[in-house]
Amino acid sequence: MPDSIDALRARVNQFVEERDWAQFHSPKNLAMAMIVEAAEVVEHFQWMTEADSRQLAADTREQVGQELADTFVYLMRIAEVCGIDLIAATNAKIALNAQKYPVEKCKGSNDKYTKYQ
Amino acid sequence: MPDSIDALRARVNQFVEERDWAQFHSPKNLAMAMIVEAAEVVEHFQWMTEADSRQLAADTREQVGQELADTFVYLMRIAEVCGIDLIAATNAKIALNAQKYPVEKCKGSNDKYTKYQ
Amino acid sequence: MPDSIDALRARVNQFVEERDWAQFHSPKNLAMAMIVEAAEVVEHFQWMTEADSRQLAADTREQVGQELADTFVYLMRIAEVCGIDLIAATNAKIALNAQKYPVEKCKGSNDKYTKYQ
Amino acid sequence: MPDSIDALRARVNQFVEERDWAQFHSPKNLAMAMIVEAAEVVEHFQWMTEADSRQLAADTREQVGQELADTFVYLMRIAEVCGIDLIAATNAKIALNAQKYPVEKCKGSNDKYTKYQ
Repeated sequence: MPDSIDALRARVNQFVEERDWAQFHSPKNLAMAMIVEAAEVVEHFQWMTEADSRQLAADTREQVGQELADTFVYLMRIAEVCGIDLIAATNAKIALNAQKYPVEKCKGSNDKYTKYQ
Repeated sequence: MPDSIDALRARVNQFVEERDWAQFHSPKNLAMAMIVEAAEVVEHFQWMTEADSRQLAADTREQVGQELADTFVYLMRIAEVCGIDLIAATNAKIALNAQKYPVEKCKGSNDKYTKYQ
Repeated sequence: MPDSIDALRARVNQFVEERDWAQFHSPKNLAMAMIVEAAEVVEHFQWMTEADSRQLAADTREQVGQELADTFVYLMRIAEVCGIDLIAATNAKIALNAQKYPVEKCKGSNDKYTKYQ
Repeated sequence: MPDSIDALRARVNQFVEERDWAQFHSPKNLAMAMIVEAAEVVEHFQWMTEADSRQLAADTREQVGQELADTFVYLMRIAEVCGIDLIAATNAKIALNAQKYPVEKCKGSNDKYTKYQ
């Protein structure tokens, strides 16, 4: 089974081609599909305390994993269809976030970065 | 720069540790953060036609890439904190989706799978 | 100022007409706009404890009110454009929810209704 | 049946009290529940063209109405629990939006308001 994003992306693309679904996969539609799946992740946690969300039962973890996977599939599809290199974009954004949130200013704080500027 | 999910995940984890943010990263909070970022992806497309969403200007593509990256970072964090192997979960879910959406029944159709059962 | 949903809806419709925005207000686009605003509500609470979310500072309450208002405006617009009577639909759904969640079975419990069936 | 927001809000509050659910209704949890319902509205439209979303079949309109109602119920609950007057907040926000989007500058345009400033 694929063990890298590139291999996963290729598998997803093949899945879509076999079903002739690229016609429905505009970035607009895929963004809607992605947030619908993200909401299914949220649904698992909506009435749970934070503490309980840190110690999931095995069947809940399994279900959360399935919803995360669906979210990830659409996320990869958006990157694919928009011509975005997801790995490069993520590395670049982490570097940007490191500038927005310098360790010495925000250690242990959950303030939004606008408070540091 | 990291070129695999494992390397990215390690980089994200280090980012969180340096800032002592793990205390805020309950799955409940992370699911909220992920859907907020997913909505920032949606925001780019909300008034765009599907056709326009397929041919983004360079600066919009750059911004969409940044929002996708933020969504992906929280997605990886949820997997990390819940003890979910994201690659394995995604491979398993694609296999499940292939059963739910058999090629011969759903080729070229955007019906929901419940119509095939 | 309007003090009923009907008066508010009329005010919102006039706002849209004056700007000739009905052309952009397909239910598909409005659903995207509504969830983007709902996410701005979520953003206020993502790193807050439940306890802190119950005692908001005045400025945060003001901001949450603004995001709720934007969400509500798009919600009313979707009802308007789809020809849905929001008040009637909400009364009908509350009656349905009362059947799904009978008091004697779910008092004090946050289980999903599927557990009662 | 209630025909105003006040009457609806009272009905929803009674529903919650009868089930002793106020303990779960922190603004944080309610914001999660609201966005989950908003996503169920989005789900109806994700693979639909804009044109098709403007002419819903009767059963789809019925279902969209149910999801809108659930979204609205949680929206009213957030306002209730946070001590926000939803009608007043919405009137105030519409007035603010009228300043952000002056008719003479944005008529017929879907540009974001930041373009006018």
